[in-house]
Formats: sequence, C-alpha cells, structure tokens
Amino acid sequence: MTYTLVLLRHGESEWNAKNLFTGWVDVALTEKGRGEAVRGGELLREAGVLPDVVHTSLQRRAINTAALALDAADRHWIPVRRSWRLNERHYGALQGKDKKQTLEQYGEEQFMLWRRSFDVPPPPIDPDDEFSQSDDPRYADLGDEAPRTECLKDVIARLLPYWESDVVADLRSGKTVLVAAHGNSLRAIVKHLDGISDDDIAGLNIPTGMPLVYRLDDDLRPTVPGGEYLDPEAAAAAAAAVANQGR
Amino acid sequence: MTYTLVLLRHGESEWNAKNLFTGWVDVALTEKGRGEAVRGGELLREAGVLPDVVHTSLQRRAINTAALALDAADRHWIPVRRSWRLNERHYGALQGKDKKQTLEQYGEEQFMLWRRSFDVPPPPIDPDDEFSQSDDPRYADLGDEAPRTECLKDVIARLLPYWESDVVADLRSGKTVLVAAHGNSLRAIVKHLDGISDDDIAGLNIPTGMPLVYRLDDDLRPTVPGGEYLDPEAAAAAAAAVANQGR
Repeated sequence: MTYTLVLLRHGESEWNAKNLFTGWVDVALTEKGRGEAVRGGELLREAGVLPDVVHTSLQRRAINTAALALDAADRHWIPVRRSWRLNERHYGALQGKDKKQTLEQYGEEQFMLWRRSFDVPPPPIDPDDEFSQSDDPRYADLGDEAPRTECLKDVIARLLPYWESDVVADLRSGKTVLVAAHGNSLRAIVKHLDGISDDDIAGLNIPTGMPLVYRLDDDLRPTVPGGEYLDPEAAAAAAAAVANQGR
Repeated sequence: MTYTLVLLRHGESEWNAKNLFTGWVDVALTEKGRGEAVRGGELLREAGVLPDVVHTSLQRRAINTAALALDAADRHWIPVRRSWRLNERHYGALQGKDKKQTLEQYGEEQFMLWRRSFDVPPPPIDPDDEFSQSDDPRYADLGDEAPRTECLKDVIARLLPYWESDVVADLRSGKTVLVAAHGNSLRAIVKHLDGISDDDIAGLNIPTGMPLVYRLDDDLRPTVPGGEYLDPEAAAAAAAAVANQGR
C-alpha cells in the first residue's frame, strides 16, 4: 500500500507581487496567481492524480487556490477541511513591510536570519498594528495560542498536531490528500516527511502553483525523497526565482 | 434563543442562460451568475449576517456560488460541508433538453406537470445518455440510491435525512448556517420549514443569488413565515422572472 499526498503552494498573491512580507495578513490572489492555481489543477487532471479530500489553511490565497485547482481538476465536490495550523508563518512585526526596504534597513545578515533561520522569529507584532490579526473572528477561539510572530520551528510545532490527527487519518484511510497551503507551512511538512535537518531546510524553496506529489510507504516515508513535481522543469525554474526574492 | 439559517440559490448557470433543463448535469456559472454570487455575499456582509458554516450540494454552480459569496462576505474560511442530498432535482430524461422546445413538443399541460407537479417525475434518464451521471465518481458510493429522475416529493425524501442530521445539528449548536443550493432543493427546505402544502409549493419560486434569511424558534419554526430577503424588492422582481421561464 502506498499513500498519495499532494502539496500545493498558493499562486501569486497581491503582496507577493508587491514584495511585502505577508504572513497572516489575508491578501487575495492576483490574476496571475489565479491562473497558476488553474494550471495546477489541470496538471492534476492530466496526471490522473485526483484528490479525495483537501486540507487548507484559513487564508484566502490558499482557500482560493484550492478551489480554482479543484474546479479545473473536476474535483470541486470533494470534502474540505481547514485549519489555522496550515497557515503561513506569522511574520510578526515584519507583516506589511517591504522586503527590499527591510533588506536595506537591517542588512543581509539580519534579513536572512528572519527569512530563513530555523529558530529566530522576527519581533512580535503589536496587537494594535493594522496588520495584526488580534480582532480577526477566525482566530478568536485560539486565545493565547494565537501567535504574534513565528520562526519555522514554531510553525512545525503548531502544524504537526494537525498533520498527525487529521491529515494522516485521511492518508491512512486510503484517500489521495491535497494540502493547499503556504511556503512555510509546506516547508514544515516536507522537512518532517523527508527528515531534512534544521540547517538544510533553509535551502529548500517550494514554487507556487506546482503540485508536488509524494507517494508514502506504510511508515509514511516518501518512496521518492523530495517527492515529484508534475511539471519538474517549471518547478525547478520557479524555485530558483523564489530563492532570489528580495534581491 | 433563535437560530439563523440563510438559503442561497446559485447564480445564473450556463444552462440557465441557454434555457436547458439541467438537473444533475454539472454546468458552470456564467459571468452574470458569478456576479450574482458576489453580490449575495456583499448583502450578507452589509447586513451583518455572517455564516459560521456552509452546506453545499456536490454541484459546481452551488459550490462556486458559496465560495464567491463567502469570499465577498469575508467568511471564506468557515467550515464547509457538502452532500449530494442538497443537489438540484434530477430532471431525468429531460436533462440537456431545451425548455422551450420541450414545451412546444409536449404541450403546456405535460410541461407544467414535469416542472411543477409535486409527485410526477419526468421519464428516467438512460444510463448511457450523455447527460446521465452513471459514471460520475462523486456518486459512485450511492449505488442503487442514485436517482435517474426525481419529482419534488423525491427531493424532499432524500434531502430531509441530511437536513435533520447535519443542518439541524449545526443550527442547534448556535451556528449561523448558510445552505448554498438549487431551486428545487431549496424549495424542499422552504416547504418543510413553512409547512407549505403539496399543492401550494408549485407557486413558490426562489430567485438566484439573493440571500433568504430565516430566524427559527426553539422548535425550528420560522419566526417570520417565508423568511426575509436581504434585498426584498430585487427578490420579488427576480422571482417573477423565474416563474416565466420557458415562455
């Protein structure tokens, strides 16, 4: 028995296009991002990789990416599960800040530490900041659990309980599972699946809108390390572009 | 304690626009239909009627109406439940047929019997018909329960179990519930809620894309019979137009 997991990072958002740190700010997809999502769904359909259930974050860009991709794959009717635990990394006080400007202001070292270090979060966001989610009804039940900043280590810590309880349960029941989420929540899953070290995960970039398919063995270990992109050439080119963000 | 239920019929579909019987054929929304869905969501937001959970059919036009409306209402992140029991009435052998042509071919009496009688279904569709759903994976689990034609009475019989088990459970837990569905599955719910007779339900038409809000008492009876449209004037005009379809 092998289990099938598909990871899909949302297409370009309005703030990707503007080169701003987004985190938990609930921005929309651009037209380009919507097109990426549709193309992702077409790739699924063409490859015959048909999700039986989808898990998304609580964020618009992942929710709409899932909806557009599944519509294009003719799988719009499958069950939907959502969790804040699949959200993008909370970017703390950097949310809403320009990436290039932040790089110039704080320098290469601090900038890369915030972007890619495993365990150094940016400063926490002020609850009164316009880009805080302190009044957002979708997170009201979280109380003190609601993050005000996160590093990748924090993302892994809040994501894995949902992975173990909900995603694994769907995989074990034999369903093809689609997870439509974000750069850092998907890096957290890939790190877990492929056993990537805290140091090496910094170098891993996941391109937008490209279905990444993992076939997992009985122990939920990847049969092909790193999984397989349905469009490997486009994925490699896109991952290189992500690595250069902010330059 | 009152409970809040919102009914939303999908916006114009490609086959509404072409005046074809649709039933279980999974057609897409038109641009006009997408606009109706967005407007429906804006009405919800403006009225402060904010769904906590959405129930949809397994059909694209209702699924996408829900997604567009909830996105416009900033409630895209709420839990989603889907069931074939909320599907449009199966139109049997009429699926894919032109309404005007059917009216001319069979005459006013037979036409209105199929469209509006409570308990006379159209002839069943041939499983090999191009507009049958006999090979559709989303209905594969239904087996012999999958309808090949339905009258409104049949819709009520397959819808009520889901209403009682799933929708009522969400209402009883205090959630504002959105049901995004179809002309006939929503008529089935309205008939049940308002205690409309088998004869009188023929005269009831529900307009597309207009949120219909029911406040229900402890016995889940409407506090205002017939509910309240968030935009009553537009709803009255649209309902009149639906009644004249096929003319």
